[in-house]
Amino acid sequence: MDIATYLEEDIGRGDITTLLTVPDTVGVAEIVCEEDCVVAGLAEATEVFRIVGGDVETFCVDGERVSAGTRILTVTGSLRGLITGERTALNFLMQMSGIATATRRAVELAEGKIIVAATRKTTPGFGEFQKKAVALGGGDTHRPALDSMIMIKDNHIKACGSVMNAMMKVSDAPFFIKKEVEVTSLQDAVVAAEMGADIIMPDNMGPVATGEVRDHVKAINPRILIEASGNIRPENIPDYIGKADIVSMGYLTHSTPSVQFSMDII
Amino acid sequence: MDIATYLEEDIGRGDITTLLTVPDTVGVAEIVCEEDCVVAGLAEATEVFRIVGGDVETFCVDGERVSAGTRILTVTGSLRGLITGERTALNFLMQMSGIATATRRAVELAEGKIIVAATRKTTPGFGEFQKKAVALGGGDTHRPALDSMIMIKDNHIKACGSVMNAMMKVSDAPFFIKKEVEVTSLQDAVVAAEMGADIIMPDNMGPVATGEVRDHVKAINPRILIEASGNIRPENIPDYIGKADIVSMGYLTHSTPSVQFSMDII
Amino acid sequence: MDIATYLEEDIGRGDITTLLTVPDTVGVAEIVCEEDCVVAGLAEATEVFRIVGGDVETFCVDGERVSAGTRILTVTGSLRGLITGERTALNFLMQMSGIATATRRAVELAEGKIIVAATRKTTPGFGEFQKKAVALGGGDTHRPALDSMIMIKDNHIKACGSVMNAMMKVSDAPFFIKKEVEVTSLQDAVVAAEMGADIIMPDNMGPVATGEVRDHVKAINPRILIEASGNIRPENIPDYIGKADIVSMGYLTHSTPSVQFSMDII
Amino acid sequence: MDIATYLEEDIGRGDITTLLTVPDTVGVAEIVCEEDCVVAGLAEATEVFRIVGGDVETFCVDGERVSAGTRILTVTGSLRGLITGERTALNFLMQMSGIATATRRAVELAEGKIIVAATRKTTPGFGEFQKKAVALGGGDTHRPALDSMIMIKDNHIKACGSVMNAMMKVSDAPFFIKKEVEVTSLQDAVVAAEMGADIIMPDNMGPVATGEVRDHVKAINPRILIEASGNIRPENIPDYIGKADIVSMGYLTHSTPSVQFSMDII
Amino acid sequence: MDIATYLEEDIGRGDITTLLTVPDTVGVAEIVCEEDCVVAGLAEATEVFRIVGGDVETFCVDGERVSAGTRILTVTGSLRGLITGERTALNFLMQMSGIATATRRAVELAEGKIIVAATRKTTPGFGEFQKKAVALGGGDTHRPALDSMIMIKDNHIKACGSVMNAMMKVSDAPFFIKKEVEVTSLQDAVVAAEMGADIIMPDNMGPVATGEVRDHVKAINPRILIEASGNIRPENIPDYIGKADIVSMGYLTHSTPSVQFSMDII
Amino acid sequence: MDIATYLEEDIGRGDITTLLTVPDTVGVAEIVCEEDCVVAGLAEATEVFRIVGGDVETFCVDGERVSAGTRILTVTGSLRGLITGERTALNFLMQMSGIATATRRAVELAEGKIIVAATRKTTPGFGEFQKKAVALGGGDTHRPALDSMIMIKDNHIKACGSVMNAMMKVSDAPFFIKKEVEVTSLQDAVVAAEMGADIIMPDNMGPVATGEVRDHVKAINPRILIEASGNIRPENIPDYIGKADIVSMGYLTHSTPSVQFSMDII
Repeated sequence: MDIATYLEEDIGRGDITTLLTVPDTVGVAEIVCEEDCVVAGLAEATEVFRIVGGDVETFCVDGERVSAGTRILTVTGSLRGLITGERTALNFLMQMSGIATATRRAVELAEGKIIVAATRKTTPGFGEFQKKAVALGGGDTHRPALDSMIMIKDNHIKACGSVMNAMMKVSDAPFFIKKEVEVTSLQDAVVAAEMGADIIMPDNMGPVATGEVRDHVKAINPRILIEASGNIRPENIPDYIGKADIVSMGYLTHSTPSVQFSMDII
Repeated sequence: MDIATYLEEDIGRGDITTLLTVPDTVGVAEIVCEEDCVVAGLAEATEVFRIVGGDVETFCVDGERVSAGTRILTVTGSLRGLITGERTALNFLMQMSGIATATRRAVELAEGKIIVAATRKTTPGFGEFQKKAVALGGGDTHRPALDSMIMIKDNHIKACGSVMNAMMKVSDAPFFIKKEVEVTSLQDAVVAAEMGADIIMPDNMGPVATGEVRDHVKAINPRILIEASGNIRPENIPDYIGKADIVSMGYLTHSTPSVQFSMDII
Repeated sequence: MDIATYLEEDIGRGDITTLLTVPDTVGVAEIVCEEDCVVAGLAEATEVFRIVGGDVETFCVDGERVSAGTRILTVTGSLRGLITGERTALNFLMQMSGIATATRRAVELAEGKIIVAATRKTTPGFGEFQKKAVALGGGDTHRPALDSMIMIKDNHIKACGSVMNAMMKVSDAPFFIKKEVEVTSLQDAVVAAEMGADIIMPDNMGPVATGEVRDHVKAINPRILIEASGNIRPENIPDYIGKADIVSMGYLTHSTPSVQFSMDII
Repeated sequence: MDIATYLEEDIGRGDITTLLTVPDTVGVAEIVCEEDCVVAGLAEATEVFRIVGGDVETFCVDGERVSAGTRILTVTGSLRGLITGERTALNFLMQMSGIATATRRAVELAEGKIIVAATRKTTPGFGEFQKKAVALGGGDTHRPALDSMIMIKDNHIKACGSVMNAMMKVSDAPFFIKKEVEVTSLQDAVVAAEMGADIIMPDNMGPVATGEVRDHVKAINPRILIEASGNIRPENIPDYIGKADIVSMGYLTHSTPSVQFSMDII
Repeated sequence: MDIATYLEEDIGRGDITTLLTVPDTVGVAEIVCEEDCVVAGLAEATEVFRIVGGDVETFCVDGERVSAGTRILTVTGSLRGLITGERTALNFLMQMSGIATATRRAVELAEGKIIVAATRKTTPGFGEFQKKAVALGGGDTHRPALDSMIMIKDNHIKACGSVMNAMMKVSDAPFFIKKEVEVTSLQDAVVAAEMGADIIMPDNMGPVATGEVRDHVKAINPRILIEASGNIRPENIPDYIGKADIVSMGYLTHSTPSVQFSMDII
Repeated sequence: MDIATYLEEDIGRGDITTLLTVPDTVGVAEIVCEEDCVVAGLAEATEVFRIVGGDVETFCVDGERVSAGTRILTVTGSLRGLITGERTALNFLMQMSGIATATRRAVELAEGKIIVAATRKTTPGFGEFQKKAVALGGGDTHRPALDSMIMIKDNHIKACGSVMNAMMKVSDAPFFIKKEVEVTSLQDAVVAAEMGADIIMPDNMGPVATGEVRDHVKAINPRILIEASGNIRPENIPDYIGKADIVSMGYLTHSTPSVQFSMDII
């Protein structure tokens, strides 16, 4: 799904208002952020404007913290193009900056001692950009799609009977791919670790039990990672420091409010 | 952008976990909502499961209010398909139900006396479904794309000098299309109304001035509609009753939290 | 459907004749129109040549009346490209100019007192360009697609029982969209007008009855438009002056002969 | 370019009129032709209705002559689908039947003694269906695209100097492909024939000179075909009988009027 | 790239021979393999025939060893469809079986003691099917695409200076992805292993040095894999047993001869 | 299927290794061939590098014979792009050069007295490039797809009863297309020739019988071509000189080994 497609969907059969009211000249516009935030989406906004015939100059970089009122970019080019692309460019900025800002806050709460990761609870058609915004905020994208990792979750285990069965079934998987397993007990965590799991995810086990899993698993092989998951919000990230290598949160991509930006012709 | 495309993006080159761990048999799963909400996305979830070989039975309809713990659908078919489609189906449900629920609340505050409308502040690639969720919540989609209406906004007016100039430039527009004009003064509202505007949008003028615009415009032609816009949140909708025909809010599509759903094999 | 696609369809797996016989050099060609006409399709021909590596200089503008023998453009660039693109470029010019020329004649018969509009009786895959040609000839495109307007026609009315029922069913339609209703009696016209129709189309009612509809409808709201339709040919447009705001004719897009153009290397 | 694409272009983001006014039930409609004609487009109309959920029963076959008022098909299925697909189905029928009818008339004038062929003067995006309509009318499609035959025309000859040069340049062409050469003199026709041309096209040489070319060429190899071309209308086909094997006419695809059809719910 | 696309490329604008000569009836055909081989491509052949209207019954499974003369499938359905699809179906079978057969031989030489893997030296547009054929032959697909693994090769190391630099640059990579490093010395292998490499690839180091790398690396972490690569042919696989976990060979996908199959109507 | 698509398939969601390890600067790389060969694929490699931001300078031309160790091109541009495109560019070169080299050898054995042609036994998705490589090696592509020629083969004849029946069924085919017929007896060859076949293919009849067919057929019309086919390998091409106009060999496209090339940053 590329950015031109998104823009075409917004334009439909043509931006009739702009074609009729705006002269076919060159113009300049600026985009200002209206809230303190971590900016994300500059590359996407730049691409939107490039498609409609505008050259962008940016005054900050993706992932930078800026304060309300900051001019983040100016764009010069076809005046019609600038106005036609305005909304799509702003939509990228507002959604991606919302996610980057929320991620940065979580990352700060993690104090560099635990990785903050996204999940696959993304918006259909926009997940790639949401994961990129998480990365710009300092988080980890987690796997981009179902083909990126073997990740054995509750329904897989139910379908094949046990963690041990599941691990046996993936023992001949191609060597290029990692194996993560969701577990609900220390016992299953140990089985998974001994049978070759690269990552173990104690599901909703809470910080104490997660820490216990961690200790046993690291004793089997110190490279195995522990991912804590399940109703984790930024506030309780500190509880998992020392107990897990990673905390993952759907919240970052499915429920963060947008940041407001506006564009004005100058 | 169709639902198969979204699903393919999530699957990538194949759901290797499911192919390796889940037997190639028929299974049944159920989806339960975990919060009180207005459900939306049933049609989309049904389509996701149809693509992966599942038949859905629903226990409520899109737009219905349900309480936490309600089983909203069961799906029967290829067990592998159900698990592969799980996340994409849930992502539609959680995002669309979040919007429908927020919209319903706004609509209730409007008491049937004012239309609650969305804007084009949508997520790139998902706007069609966000606008549908607004409609399921009882709101108005507003125009789907730039080709659906002539909508003269601040940057158009700047680019051509005045509301009067802009209205002259659209006077020969095809007859099938409505004309909406954003105004910042009563004077411009009167000009727009006399020159054929179908809808007038006082921008950030507040309820009192908006009501004044309304009175003058309706005197010119009672069919002209007034759309109030600009930093409107559900809470201040009642202020616009009697002052506008429509309130529009970007909030509905850009900043509403998701509703949680879960799927279990049964 | 973009112009590159049309060209690719004509080229197939390659213009083998040109590749074998024409040297890989730069050349110049000119296109001459062979009949008096209103030219349309210059933008499309220019795009065809751009794709195959040619720069176009035009000697008239789309919508201009030119006489037989006029050189309308020259194109400079890859000699092979010019010859490969020749037929597709000419096909756009001949079809679009045919329509623009016929439309211009109808518009002149309308004496500026009535809008001449196209219909959806277009050639599949080429309707967008046919409607553009109508506009270049001075006509109105009418709605581009089924999503552009609510247009209640005979089969809709049959399907829901009456004009009144149909108008009730569309009473909650999104506010951005106009409503047109086809009627076969004055009574239905009045119902439609009172229930919010923006445009009324007396179907095959003839000029006298159409005028009567017009008088009653304008008394309800002077902004409601009257579109006369049904077997109207350019010759009887004058009969509808003062009786309707718009006449629409399928003839413009489905049965106008082409204008001949030829291209020569110079 | 497939039929679903054409239909999607006409529907855009949805047939809102039909969705709002027509109940979601099963219905039946019939299509009647309103003029004497050779019917073409039945397969395409059937496919349009199949896509929108309708089963078609036809009462004649593509290429059959029918008289005005004949019911040519009924379609049963989703009432909404039938109405949504109506216009696209009719557009195929009206355009293709117009061409088939004109072709049949030309073929009858040819009395089985000369092949009547189309050219590449087609409507961009619809040429495949126009050529099919020519075949249904009894004509020959001529080459479908630039890759189907080596066809050396005036601009190719200009670009490489002479018919002899052109024939030398194509002497190593792959063996699967025929070679046709446009000539303007008997001398060039003889050169082309001796150098391996499969078809010779005397361009605008008139029946007498064309016949002379024919005699010389057939003496070289009786399998070489003669195609007469250039401002040929049905009326002067008989002049070419015995003088050429084929007459080709752009008229069949670029300037034939449509045949009217109508659809009614029953 | 799906199978329908491949088939469409072979059909082009239509299988005119079959349409003209073969009656529109139901028929049966059988496919026989003409050489001893490991069959692969049954699923793809079945899909080809499904698209053209044929139902396949198979008499062996993908990955099975069969001898010359074995009937591997029969297909029943549209006789025209069977003949139109014949070549594409056979092309999948012959290419994929060639690769599966060569892979099986290599796997047998490996005696279950070393993994035989493919590389990215595949045919553009067909690599997915070549890798599948390797898997059916008992080999390992290796990474499907550049996004599936971090694989630091000679040019990457040159571009960033050293193995140590390269490993530092990937230290913040997302946790879901494995890291493989190509090395040319024991020293670099140890650096890579200590800095977190999951797989080490001694490039063209020969079996003895590869074994030495293996011993040192396994001492650092026994889960790190050793992939031997560089001019390895089936014959010298046994040399690497005990020295590496994996041998990878471009030969399997870029230079294996096809297996012959034929189809006959019965 | 264009080259960008092939490249995208190899890149997937991004070349993460290169993005992380290679600086965003300009670089130069060279490609060297490692075996004596006829080079093919230069145009394709150049296009691959163009897409990723590299300008290519070539030191030989497609179809040229070069010896092992020859530098065939250098490419300058985005260092990241060069490394990302490396494998796809090399895959085109190695596959196409393998085919061109094998074809050249066959063509030399033909001594200019017989055409060496490919068949449709190609790799799905890559056939266009394989046929181009055959042409660069000096061979004939044969028909590109099923729409390029009427080619009546064994299964067509079985389906309609006899060569005579088949020829009758194609007697009304469009005039632009050649007709080839596979025969198994002299008698059928004569029937086919008399009924208008342009090419006759004695199937597996061996050189003597093929020569006999040739003599009879040329007596009917000297322009009819004879194509020998069936288990022909380069070695037995000389046997067919004077007996056939063309020999066709599936071997060229389905079983030729690749030529090795390597790329190094310099």
